[in-house]
Amino acid sequence: MIVKISPRGSLDQLSQLEVERLKQGAKSDLYQLYRNCSLAVLASGLISDSSEELFTRYESFSLNILQRERGIQIELINPPLQAFVDGEIIVGIQEHLFAVLRDIIYISNKYENLKHIDLSNASHITNVVFDILRNAQAISPMKDPNVVVCWGGHSINAVEYQYTRDVGYQLGLRRLDICTGCGPGAMEGPMKGAAIAHAKQRVHNARYIGLTEPSIIAAEPPNQIVNELVILPDIEKRLEAFVRLGHGIVIFPGGAGTAEELLYFLGILLNKDNCHASFPLVLTGPAESAEYFTVIDEFIGATLGAEAQSKYQIIIDDPAKVAQIMKQGMEEVKIYRKEKCDAYQYQWSLKIEPEFQLPFAPTHEVMANLNLYFQENKAELAANLRKAFSGIVAGNVKGDTIKLIQEFGPFKIEGDAKLMLMMDKLLNAFVKQQRMKLPGSAYVPCYDIIKTNE
Amino acid sequence: MIVKISPRGSLDQLSQLEVERLKQGAKSDLYQLYRNCSLAVLASGLISDSSEELFTRYESFSLNILQRERGIQIELINPPLQAFVDGEIIVGIQEHLFAVLRDIIYISNKYENLKHIDLSNASHITNVVFDILRNAQAISPMKDPNVVVCWGGHSINAVEYQYTRDVGYQLGLRRLDICTGCGPGAMEGPMKGAAIAHAKQRVHNARYIGLTEPSIIAAEPPNQIVNELVILPDIEKRLEAFVRLGHGIVIFPGGAGTAEELLYFLGILLNKDNCHASFPLVLTGPAESAEYFTVIDEFIGATLGAEAQSKYQIIIDDPAKVAQIMKQGMEEVKIYRKEKCDAYQYQWSLKIEPEFQLPFAPTHEVMANLNLYFQENKAELAANLRKAFSGIVAGNVKGDTIKLIQEFGPFKIEGDAKLMLMMDKLLNAFVKQQRMKLPGSAYVPCYDIIKTNE
Amino acid sequence: MIVKISPRGSLDQLSQLEVERLKQGAKSDLYQLYRNCSLAVLASGLISDSSEELFTRYESFSLNILQRERGIQIELINPPLQAFVDGEIIVGIQEHLFAVLRDIIYISNKYENLKHIDLSNASHITNVVFDILRNAQAISPMKDPNVVVCWGGHSINAVEYQYTRDVGYQLGLRRLDICTGCGPGAMEGPMKGAAIAHAKQRVHNARYIGLTEPSIIAAEPPNQIVNELVILPDIEKRLEAFVRLGHGIVIFPGGAGTAEELLYFLGILLNKDNCHASFPLVLTGPAESAEYFTVIDEFIGATLGAEAQSKYQIIIDDPAKVAQIMKQGMEEVKIYRKEKCDAYQYQWSLKIEPEFQLPFAPTHEVMANLNLYFQENKAELAANLRKAFSGIVAGNVKGDTIKLIQEFGPFKIEGDAKLMLMMDKLLNAFVKQQRMKLPGSAYVPCYDIIKTNE
Amino acid sequence: MIVKISPRGSLDQLSQLEVERLKQGAKSDLYQLYRNCSLAVLASGLISDSSEELFTRYESFSLNILQRERGIQIELINPPLQAFVDGEIIVGIQEHLFAVLRDIIYISNKYENLKHIDLSNASHITNVVFDILRNAQAISPMKDPNVVVCWGGHSINAVEYQYTRDVGYQLGLRRLDICTGCGPGAMEGPMKGAAIAHAKQRVHNARYIGLTEPSIIAAEPPNQIVNELVILPDIEKRLEAFVRLGHGIVIFPGGAGTAEELLYFLGILLNKDNCHASFPLVLTGPAESAEYFTVIDEFIGATLGAEAQSKYQIIIDDPAKVAQIMKQGMEEVKIYRKEKCDAYQYQWSLKIEPEFQLPFAPTHEVMANLNLYFQENKAELAANLRKAFSGIVAGNVKGDTIKLIQEFGPFKIEGDAKLMLMMDKLLNAFVKQQRMKLPGSAYVPCYDIIKTNE
Repeated sequence: MIVKISPRGSLDQLSQLEVERLKQGAKSDLYQLYRNCSLAVLASGLISDSSEELFTRYESFSLNILQRERGIQIELINPPLQAFVDGEIIVGIQEHLFAVLRDIIYISNKYENLKHIDLSNASHITNVVFDILRNAQAISPMKDPNVVVCWGGHSINAVEYQYTRDVGYQLGLRRLDICTGCGPGAMEGPMKGAAIAHAKQRVHNARYIGLTEPSIIAAEPPNQIVNELVILPDIEKRLEAFVRLGHGIVIFPGGAGTAEELLYFLGILLNKDNCHASFPLVLTGPAESAEYFTVIDEFIGATLGAEAQSKYQIIIDDPAKVAQIMKQGMEEVKIYRKEKCDAYQYQWSLKIEPEFQLPFAPTHEVMANLNLYFQENKAELAANLRKAFSGIVAGNVKGDTIKLIQEFGPFKIEGDAKLMLMMDKLLNAFVKQQRMKLPGSAYVPCYDIIKTNE
Repeated sequence: MIVKISPRGSLDQLSQLEVERLKQGAKSDLYQLYRNCSLAVLASGLISDSSEELFTRYESFSLNILQRERGIQIELINPPLQAFVDGEIIVGIQEHLFAVLRDIIYISNKYENLKHIDLSNASHITNVVFDILRNAQAISPMKDPNVVVCWGGHSINAVEYQYTRDVGYQLGLRRLDICTGCGPGAMEGPMKGAAIAHAKQRVHNARYIGLTEPSIIAAEPPNQIVNELVILPDIEKRLEAFVRLGHGIVIFPGGAGTAEELLYFLGILLNKDNCHASFPLVLTGPAESAEYFTVIDEFIGATLGAEAQSKYQIIIDDPAKVAQIMKQGMEEVKIYRKEKCDAYQYQWSLKIEPEFQLPFAPTHEVMANLNLYFQENKAELAANLRKAFSGIVAGNVKGDTIKLIQEFGPFKIEGDAKLMLMMDKLLNAFVKQQRMKLPGSAYVPCYDIIKTNE
Repeated sequence: MIVKISPRGSLDQLSQLEVERLKQGAKSDLYQLYRNCSLAVLASGLISDSSEELFTRYESFSLNILQRERGIQIELINPPLQAFVDGEIIVGIQEHLFAVLRDIIYISNKYENLKHIDLSNASHITNVVFDILRNAQAISPMKDPNVVVCWGGHSINAVEYQYTRDVGYQLGLRRLDICTGCGPGAMEGPMKGAAIAHAKQRVHNARYIGLTEPSIIAAEPPNQIVNELVILPDIEKRLEAFVRLGHGIVIFPGGAGTAEELLYFLGILLNKDNCHASFPLVLTGPAESAEYFTVIDEFIGATLGAEAQSKYQIIIDDPAKVAQIMKQGMEEVKIYRKEKCDAYQYQWSLKIEPEFQLPFAPTHEVMANLNLYFQENKAELAANLRKAFSGIVAGNVKGDTIKLIQEFGPFKIEGDAKLMLMMDKLLNAFVKQQRMKLPGSAYVPCYDIIKTNE
Repeated sequence: MIVKISPRGSLDQLSQLEVERLKQGAKSDLYQLYRNCSLAVLASGLISDSSEELFTRYESFSLNILQRERGIQIELINPPLQAFVDGEIIVGIQEHLFAVLRDIIYISNKYENLKHIDLSNASHITNVVFDILRNAQAISPMKDPNVVVCWGGHSINAVEYQYTRDVGYQLGLRRLDICTGCGPGAMEGPMKGAAIAHAKQRVHNARYIGLTEPSIIAAEPPNQIVNELVILPDIEKRLEAFVRLGHGIVIFPGGAGTAEELLYFLGILLNKDNCHASFPLVLTGPAESAEYFTVIDEFIGATLGAEAQSKYQIIIDDPAKVAQIMKQGMEEVKIYRKEKCDAYQYQWSLKIEPEFQLPFAPTHEVMANLNLYFQENKAELAANLRKAFSGIVAGNVKGDTIKLIQEFGPFKIEGDAKLMLMMDKLLNAFVKQQRMKLPGSAYVPCYDIIKTNE
């Protein structure tokens, strides 16, 4: 089956040089990256969180870029059928295909070849993230602060899913926009709820922003309500995009990935330079999930302390209240940014330390040497804890890391006995509640927790 | 509580004469009509199908029209609180308020005072329906045939409701617009489903048309996804609006009202002048509701015969197929209208006999004298059967008729023994399946079925 | 030559009854009215101000309304060729054709048949004018006061024409909209100038409003920049539309028609009820035309007195200053309307006496009996003077009145000797400056001035 | 006087790195370039073609970029007053200011720092031109071929100016877009004419494209109707942009610059690879300018031969015919591009040799050594002739070259005696007709023509 897809969205013209670069055939890394991200987007209806399974199933899939009189077209060879309705591609997927092309081309154009960009320099990284978002037209100066980032698991139960829809509905009634990591579960529910509420409020320019990255997109393909899809180069730039682009954050129940996100964000808020930052943060779930937040809150309290706890509110079973807190928070964000002369659409003034910015590549060695001991500098502890969880996420869903685990066995995660106990408890809860993987497959941990007494 | 609401939608300026007419205070019929329709719209979130209950609960509600520098405003005194989110009116409701004002003013302006309009003349009635729809901007020449009318009960179970959403979703994926009677249940589900699909397909100009009339609006208030609300003067003009505006019809499970609609439509299709009309009609429900359609189909077969049965398809548990039939039907409708030089947006060529057009006011005398005997002219039998069901609907939900029943007892519905037996069976099925009223209240029939042998 | 024209603008659907009414063939008055207005619009490029000449030249022109699948089409038989570019109709003319249809249908629908409208009742006339403008979508509540009415002759010299363009340019630079009587000369120049300035200011929703009426449209066909064309039923309703819709008035040099307009407006401003009305009025022309305004100003001073003179400013050769006065005036109009709770888009609160509203039909008898003597009530004198000029305009350009003159000789206009002397002087100046008719034809006066001493 | 200007158009957000680069103060070359281009844009109302005069007059002008909550603002210090109307900047100029910023930033971002772009490589240059146009959003895939490039002098007489307006008007009536070098004279007239015609045809998305470059912008500042202003890095890339972006070319009377453009374009069309290219070319002027074209045509015939002459049509005094040829040409361009699979919006397939692409910097040495002898390869001769005229243009208006002339005397232009005679004749005609400089200043030639016999 061969289908030709016309442009839709923010990219429609490529130069001959750009087309050439993606043509270099199956051996080129860039083409592989492009092909795999495109496949993930096309597979967005499939229920699976295994990228390997996806790649095996659609081995015969490939694609070409064609030059035509009205610009380019993408030729798809053997694409997944569920991307089509009666033979026509779903427009949301069509947009996502061109978003992938746009971001792959842009990043490769710009950052592989630039002499003056130093990607180990914090300010340069922040500028790169800005560049990518701007190129994706995700930075629009006319809107007031309005973007609520929703984090939470891709594997949640039906009650939790309905709750994320209800929160989305209440956010939508208040005309707030939604930004998520753009997979299923807690990343989809708020968008669906908001879409209905936006229809009732006649909000026609609502934003459903999905931020993803190449190594995660196949495991968590974007749902089609996402109308601004951006592929960041790696997990750290994606996290930075969330916190500079978003104006408030809601965290639903989730697994290791959600813990990573929470620790990342608390680590930044605990930075002294950000102590006055205005950034509403709510942890919320249905009554049935109250226990989940108790465990998390205890873990934060015991590791990062009361100051960290003061950065968030936990709201149980009250979607309207969550939305009211966010709505009110937007006003405060607006005042704060105005005072700081900081852009509404990209929070330049938020201080992010290199340890949160530089790509973290989890290997057995690195994971074994994380400094997981109690310490005064809570921001640093948060950074290390977030790396531990980041490694576990990679071991669960990212192809390369899974191969490492298969070869060398589980990661050894070692640290203070008391701290490791709490971590173990948290992770066990995730496993038990089936938050690590979609139900159906038994979860085999990719880590061993080792307690030491210093 | 007093709130001022600014215009939204297709009406924003009134002349001083028009404002005056609605000012004439609580005693004026026109003001009462206007107030009650407005209240219904404001109460759209309430779960109840009793207009009396609504009117009692909000006795202190009133409203005024104010002249302001940017045109008019509506002042609401003691409105239902669920129309507001954090003190601001939901925009969908705001639009509906001005749609009510627009239609009440227009109908009163035009038809109470026109010398040259004869409302007992069939062609004039058809022109009046056109006029009202055009004034509501519901007739837009640029769209191809695209409007799927969804009929079905306001009181349906959770499985059926989910099924109506699924069908709406599939219709929406195919970019079809939705038109319903604009209450809850089967009138809401397809719109919600379509809204999600339209979001995925990036259809920004989707139409969610709600056609209602003053005596039904309070019992079945419009849901807020409806973005084109039109209030027709009476039930017959509303039915005519459905069949001239719509391009295909899907019927979900329902009660007496749904039966009325089906009989009305079959009566028209059985008219010899319409024998070539292109108008896809599907009866559909989930597997659990298969039995319902068997009973209906048998009733139609036994009363109106095989020709009537040939006008519809019954599809069980296959939302995608329903949508495919409708999508394909649109192409045929297009060809047919083009051949007939008939407008895509208003089917002038459909022949509707006066017995389907003239307002039917059910009284005990009229109901007792319906000619409910088998006969050759199936269109006429359909007309009479539809009147019987229309009377039952009125006895269930319309204030005036309920009072008649309270005073004089149930309607006597008399006819051929075999026919009455089938009718009784059908009505009993509706009662048993809780399709007559929302669950919670026990249903007391407003009719007695009397079998005669001629 | 037969051409079919598709709808464009605010009208696109007609009911069958409406189509029928216009079909009744060449004998129907309504059809004749419709045909002649359409012809005028099609002839807009021709340079002529003789409607008779136009009608003779295009005797074979006729038109039909067709029902099609996307609504109606207009079939033109033997239309003037200059309405087309390479065989395609100019879109501005296409819009105007449908504006004519819209207004003819609307007025005939509504006012020939309405029981409750009394057209000898001042308030009802004001409501009728509102109705027609609203139906033409000329009343849009979201704009602030912004409409500058430009009055002046259709027959002006090249220097004056360029000056009207310059003033239009300066008005356009200040984002002001233009409203004129929509013929050539001073009615076209300001629109062309404003169009260039609006392009520079990127004003994409600029309004170029043309108000005309059936008896004048053929002599002064609308230029194609006009993007809101409205045909009012008669000259008085057209004048009322100007002063209720406009927010400021600029008067350029002109002939009897311009004098009529000035007197009409001064008569209204001299009404005691309007003494606080905020309504900027500027008389302006190039240095070469300074004399013209001296004569006018003297005439006003001598007849209506210093109060009347205080209502306007005369600005010579300074387009930017004219535009600044108007721009500033808009702010005052805004404040005034807000205080009075009067609509920005239709000045309900302006008092207009019946003598300015009721249609004035100039016959020899009526013209001979005008009360043209000095009197205390300056508003009444203004009304009578405006009637005298109105009769002269009709004798110059309106078909029916021209026939009267041909049959019975010039109108006798009789009054106070001193007043008549001044009037004679003014009229002679108009004749000499070729303001009565387009250059090329010698002007034969349609009036005799007779001086009496009371 | 200090004014802050908010973004308008396609650029509104800058990264901190970008802002920094432009902040580096008065000594930075980039800042100087940015300042001077901005000043040119602000001075667009001034009548002068001397950039030196402009820079002297506004020596105190400077500007800063500010970061604000809604993105950036530009702070202007002591800007020319004619950019403002009653204290507010004209929106067209506001857009141009941000177009300047966009292009300066983009070019500096991209091409000063890119490792993989080789600007002596023809294909890379073509990609760079594409990149710049795409970044300026000047490449929009949805439009059919529609862009008419108008070339001609900035210093033309009143009759010629009116003629360029008339041609623009006729092009506009046919809905064609206009692209020019964006100064006064023949670069402004067609846009004004088209703007009026577009208004009549209700074309709301008309394009008025202005292509300029830093060394010419101050002498020929963009008029404010231009709604897509693009600053290319040098004259050769600007010429390439004209021929790849445009779909047809109209040449009006002009001086050395116009001759340069004609020779450039003929040189390309004479390339064998382009012999089938579809590209309508018309030379046109009013009856009064017929002689001008006779001289040009003779020159082309004698130097480049009959084949070159076959590439253009000369139309005298017939604006409608010019427009018809262009309109018809668009259809042929469309067919040709479709066949070639070449983009409608950027003609990749046109072959341009390096001698037309590489920047030509006229020095005394280079000018003296141009190979100006008859030869077989007409394309090469065209290239050399175009360089000769390019040098003369630079000597007339570009600051750097003027300084060279002041220091070292006129350029020596040497070549075949017969050829030089014709060239001399042509240049003398330009001088006599005041096409070299705006009238008012006496023209002192920047060249000596020297005839040799080989």
